[in-house]
Amino acid sequence: MSIEPISNLISRLSRLPGIGSKSAQRLAYHILEMSDSSSRELAEAILAAHEKVHHCAVCGNYTDRDTCDICSDKNRSDGVICVVQDARDVFAIEKTREFKGKYHVLGGAISPMDGVGPDDIRIKELVERIKQEHDNTLEVILATNPDIEGEATAVYISRLLKPMGVKVTRIAHGIPIGGNLEYVDEMTLLKAVEGRREM
Amino acid sequence: MSIEPISNLISRLSRLPGIGSKSAQRLAYHILEMSDSSSRELAEAILAAHEKVHHCAVCGNYTDRDTCDICSDKNRSDGVICVVQDARDVFAIEKTREFKGKYHVLGGAISPMDGVGPDDIRIKELVERIKQEHDNTLEVILATNPDIEGEATAVYISRLLKPMGVKVTRIAHGIPIGGNLEYVDEMTLLKAVEGRREM
Repeated sequence: MSIEPISNLISRLSRLPGIGSKSAQRLAYHILEMSDSSSRELAEAILAAHEKVHHCAVCGNYTDRDTCDICSDKNRSDGVICVVQDARDVFAIEKTREFKGKYHVLGGAISPMDGVGPDDIRIKELVERIKQEHDNTLEVILATNPDIEGEATAVYISRLLKPMGVKVTRIAHGIPIGGNLEYVDEMTLLKAVEGRREM
Repeated sequence: MSIEPISNLISRLSRLPGIGSKSAQRLAYHILEMSDSSSRELAEAILAAHEKVHHCAVCGNYTDRDTCDICSDKNRSDGVICVVQDARDVFAIEKTREFKGKYHVLGGAISPMDGVGPDDIRIKELVERIKQEHDNTLEVILATNPDIEGEATAVYISRLLKPMGVKVTRIAHGIPIGGNLEYVDEMTLLKAVEGRREM
């Protein structure tokens, strides 16, 4: 029993992250039962997102304009640039509602294993941006992921920027809030002790 | 930071079953990173499934033709009809590769709480089908779900068909294969003991 339009839909859905074959099947059947207008709206939302959204010319974040809302926001400081791997990391940090600087999205991390070198991510663009902000007392916060690739990328960028007289910081690693010492892995615990601060 | 095409896509995705707001966000960002052609194919698969797939005129199963592959299969017996609630139940039973009869999809179960009466699901159509198969020694297997609605639907249909001289059976309830007696709920255990068979 193979109904081509259904099996095609299931196969496309199961390529999405976190969607196994069972979920893909459930989603496909749900989509079949949706009203004509809802299913059309879902399909159009996919197309519209793909057509209208691109990377901000300045920071690399997602936007549907030339420059993203954050880059064009006059109330945000140009003197602090938070460097992240992915546009979705911007979204995560924005949710804290605390950071009032700007962002720079690298679009990945240095990973020799995957053949990604410094020139394959937006490091050159970061250096260019910093050269233009030269008169400011600039701080660059490196918020790449706390894994091997993210760490390597942070080290690489910091070595590049420090000679330019830029203050380079790295976000803190440690015990997550609400976490339990007992269940935290050793590396995190080590970083938490290393990064201790006076109370 | 709200980019309308992204937030629209996230909101549409999060209405799908089993997709929370976090997964919807992850899916949306994944879709943004997909190639133009993949995203178009996904959108088109949704539209195509909705346009081309409808219910089989005979059994109510999904099909992209007039009569589904199962109903038009000459090698399958017309003398056994398996009654299920949903088209996806057909798919589940087909995967066992053992059942060689035909199906009848009710499109739901009797549920007074939700305002679904016997006339709202395809019971009339089942009775019509059975009247036409009159000369056969017909068996109707009731494979509705083992919950209150499915059980009520099975009882209702069985009372309707028995006077017509049809053999009506109900699929077995019991311990699932690989299950553990200790963790099975009492109702299932009760049904398993009730339904015991001589070895």
